Amino acid sequence: MLVGTVIGNVWATHKDPTLEGMRLLIVQPMDAHGKGTAESVVAVDPMGAGIGERVLVVFGRAARHVIGKGHDIGFQTAICGIIDQMELGGRTYAPHVDQDKHS
Amino acid sequence: MLVGTVIGNVWATHKDPTLEGMRLLIVQPMDAHGKGTAESVVAVDPMGAGIGERVLVVFGRAARHVIGKGHDIGFQTAICGIIDQMELGGRTYAPHVDQDKHS
Amino acid sequence: MLVGTVIGNVWATHKDPTLEGMRLLIVQPMDAHGKGTAESVVAVDPMGAGIGERVLVVFGRAARHVIGKGHDIGFQTAICGIIDQMELGGRTYAPHVDQDKHS
Amino acid sequence: MLVGTVIGNVWATHKDPTLEGMRLLIVQPMDAHGKGTAESVVAVDPMGAGIGERVLVVFGRAARHVIGKGHDIGFQTAICGIIDQMELGGRTYAPHVDQDKHS
Amino acid sequence: MLVGTVIGNVWATHKDPTLEGMRLLIVQPMDAHGKGTAESVVAVDPMGAGIGERVLVVFGRAARHVIGKGHDIGFQTAICGIIDQMELGGRTYAPHVDQDKHS
Repeated sequence: MLVGTVIGNVWATHKDPTLEGMRLLIVQPMDAHGKGTAESVVAVDPMGAGIGERVLVVFGRAARHVIGKGHDIGFQTAICGIIDQMELGGRTYAPHVDQDKHS
Repeated sequence: MLVGTVIGNVWATHKDPTLEGMRLLIVQPMDAHGKGTAESVVAVDPMGAGIGERVLVVFGRAARHVIGKGHDIGFQTAICGIIDQMELGGRTYAPHVDQDKHS
Repeated sequence: MLVGTVIGNVWATHKDPTLEGMRLLIVQPMDAHGKGTAESVVAVDPMGAGIGERVLVVFGRAARHVIGKGHDIGFQTAICGIIDQMELGGRTYAPHVDQDKHS
Repeated sequence: MLVGTVIGNVWATHKDPTLEGMRLLIVQPMDAHGKGTAESVVAVDPMGAGIGERVLVVFGRAARHVIGKGHDIGFQTAICGIIDQMELGGRTYAPHVDQDKHS
Repeated sequence: MLVGTVIGNVWATHKDPTLEGMRLLIVQPMDAHGKGTAESVVAVDPMGAGIGERVLVVFGRAARHVIGKGHDIGFQTAICGIIDQMELGGRTYAPHVDQDKHS
């Protein structure tokens, strides 16, 4: 379970049928200093998050719960919340990350 | 299962309904030398941990057990204990981490 | 769940019987800047992906769903989609990665 | 499943009730050259391992099996064996790691 | 699920009873360029792999399937195949890794 920033979109025509109609976002996890890490994850988004928004990402069974289509699905990562406010190391962070700064 | 330090809070209004009323803390894992790593995780906190406290963090089924709301929930990381004392490499660590030192 | 690029093939004669007839591809995960990471994963490919294609990779139960041979199988990573288009940091990426550039 | 060295202890008074009476050790995983990594994990120890001993650590369901208290417990990492001998890269390693060398 | 090279053996007399009679190998995962990473994993080996051989390693439920002793066991990583041939970045790799080169 992590905080990350939405940094991109992915489209796939040829895919497992259970992915049909799912919005796939690329999320960059946040490190302990509030900066983006070098890694990326792909998450199904049932929350309607936009590019630059900070989101909560879950995995496995929790991700399947958030999607709400049972446990026989072909993905295991989902956005479960859009962050309004974050306090880290005494600083308050805005919900959006400036696109020029997140990398 | 890891030892980490509570370094921040996260608030989300738009989220999976099962997250309603849950306290979400940002935790910085501890490395093998007792220092904070570069990474962060977000954990649901049923223990009432405060900023700067060292905590035990669990994942998956163990996290769902700690929360006690069944297995149909939208998160999979939780704080399962607040550390009183820690011995590492022959040194004894205080339960709190000085905010100026943890990064 | 991650985006990666197909960079190789693996063949094994002596293997768990459930791997019989499965295509095994080596995939290099993509980082937050659209470049390949240093790591690699091996994924079963039911999608027919080719070398250099960008793919979606899933793990655990989701991978077993994608394969469609039940849960008593000896692998837990699968390709669940072939990426047509990807937008990352304001740039649009082609579906194929030039073999000279991915490393 | 990894090999690591016991490098410390953790005590927590305020914790999930299922952690009551469990011994919690800090373990430093071993890298491919037989040295300690920068990371640490916390494991429940039903084996009676001591500081400096090399141990086998398991996660998830396997950890719950090793503990033997069912699947409704608040931890998911356990020590499942104490290593007598290890051969790595043609060298034989003693069961104990000298405390001055493990970091 | 990963490709790695067998680099060592581990013996443990004091261990969970389900580990009795299991062969435990240390495996060094392969990176995206065909080289060994800094990490190591320990895997149960039902395949009879030797030092220097390239193998496929699986985790969790898939590892328990490969072992074939049910799900109440104290390990969660296993070798599920021995690699005959591997093509990566246009090069063909031999099944064995020269012991002088793998680190």
